[in-house]
Amino acid sequence: MSKEDGRPGTPKDTHYAKLRRAHRERKGGAPAPRQKPSVPPGEAPADGLVRLYGLHTVRAAIDNPRRKIRRMLVTRNAAERLGIADPSALPFPATLVEPKEIDRITGSDAVHQGVLVEAEPLKPKRLEALGDTPLVLVLDQVTDPHNVGAIMRSAVAFGAGALVTTARHSPAESGVLAKAASGALEHIDLIEVKNLAEALQRLHDAGFSTIGLDSEGPAELEKSFAGDRIALVLGAEGKGLRQKTRETVSALARLDMPGPIRSLNVSNAAAIALYAARSHLGRKS
Amino acid sequence: MSKEDGRPGTPKDTHYAKLRRAHRERKGGAPAPRQKPSVPPGEAPADGLVRLYGLHTVRAAIDNPRRKIRRMLVTRNAAERLGIADPSALPFPATLVEPKEIDRITGSDAVHQGVLVEAEPLKPKRLEALGDTPLVLVLDQVTDPHNVGAIMRSAVAFGAGALVTTARHSPAESGVLAKAASGALEHIDLIEVKNLAEALQRLHDAGFSTIGLDSEGPAELEKSFAGDRIALVLGAEGKGLRQKTRETVSALARLDMPGPIRSLNVSNAAAIALYAARSHLGRKS
Repeated sequence: MSKEDGRPGTPKDTHYAKLRRAHRERKGGAPAPRQKPSVPPGEAPADGLVRLYGLHTVRAAIDNPRRKIRRMLVTRNAAERLGIADPSALPFPATLVEPKEIDRITGSDAVHQGVLVEAEPLKPKRLEALGDTPLVLVLDQVTDPHNVGAIMRSAVAFGAGALVTTARHSPAESGVLAKAASGALEHIDLIEVKNLAEALQRLHDAGFSTIGLDSEGPAELEKSFAGDRIALVLGAEGKGLRQKTRETVSALARLDMPGPIRSLNVSNAAAIALYAARSHLGRKS
Repeated sequence: MSKEDGRPGTPKDTHYAKLRRAHRERKGGAPAPRQKPSVPPGEAPADGLVRLYGLHTVRAAIDNPRRKIRRMLVTRNAAERLGIADPSALPFPATLVEPKEIDRITGSDAVHQGVLVEAEPLKPKRLEALGDTPLVLVLDQVTDPHNVGAIMRSAVAFGAGALVTTARHSPAESGVLAKAASGALEHIDLIEVKNLAEALQRLHDAGFSTIGLDSEGPAELEKSFAGDRIALVLGAEGKGLRQKTRETVSALARLDMPGPIRSLNVSNAAAIALYAARSHLGRKS
């Protein structure tokens, strides 16, 4: 929806142009026959490293002082678009490569836009690290990396201070998640807790209203907000919130949907909830 | 976010359970080494057919009288979950198969949940077919199938009457799109137009306010709504709305985002805009 967003679309961006062309050619209802077999992803990175790719994602990683980058592979074109005049001047090893060398690592289906870094994962924080933010997002076993990445992006856009997950059943940092987050991964504290119900209690003690989203919730979302600190709690698609979570939150709230389908993609539900919570908090301040 | 939603998660759902397990195992920061190579998708379907898979998606296709299904492959377990007691009683050929036979067609990365149909694509309608709906969504060259599918799902949930796209640069109906739409593809009219600016003019003539989402828009989204028919216009990530579209809409509106990232995934932006438009229309009625 914005110009500075997503994949910058210059004519030089041949990888993305190729994808767009593939979509166009698929017009007419039927998927086009594959032009050539896609390159599968290569071996996983060593030593517990994560691979981050895409212009926005890598730009944000470079700009994050907490992020330790071990090495970069970059095309001449992507280096130019990242404003890297001299790759050898970077504080980590960087190698100029052809796009297909990155394809061989990420697989050719990943929209890497000509840049890949291997980096140490960010260390999740503890609940004690939560500052005085008025808005946090809590995920009850949502793990799909596309959804979690998009949720992180919306959380950062709407100024949420942290994403709270359980240590088990939490999203693993990965290239797919980071790409969907479009840089947001570097901008939000990920807090891992052992016991979600206990963490919700501690959020209550800290003055938060915890609002669980549930399609059968008794209250409309907008009417369930109270106070000046909001924690939005979302469950996985198909499973929803766990029973213990449902029993612990301050309120269970629904989004009213008048149409024949009464559920949303979880990242879409999160975006709406963040928007509505931000409106409530704006009225309070 | 809801129980009836997404992928039903019984212990029997081994394909999805496997994916969840893979996510869990990837915990600790680093992607797990691949257990076994994934099966790539097979040949495209013949005769301009589309392949639809996943329980919700196929259920909705079966229930849609406009959808012509040519054949079905289904596992015993999925047939049970779809309430199909006797596959031979269906009005199209249905074959009981093992999950891996569907893997060989969709690729093992597709969450097919044990059911696949080959069907004729739905015929897009013309703008004349637009009924008296108060809410439509217009896509200006948004083609990513995951995003368009999620947008369709939100559009149906919030009761939008149609999705208007250009005939060129429009999303092709595909398994990926249909899966992301989670059945919504069967519930919304897809309207294709040759010239988007002309279509917007015709929407104005029919009493619509057309609101283009733009991160630099002069008005806040909620304050830009007027009248009792709303058309929300969204552009592709990275490109935004085309110049001609920007010149034609009734208003360019932004979503206020206080955080360090000022753009959303396009389906997240669409969900928020639909929610806000629905609130506006609710206050009018």
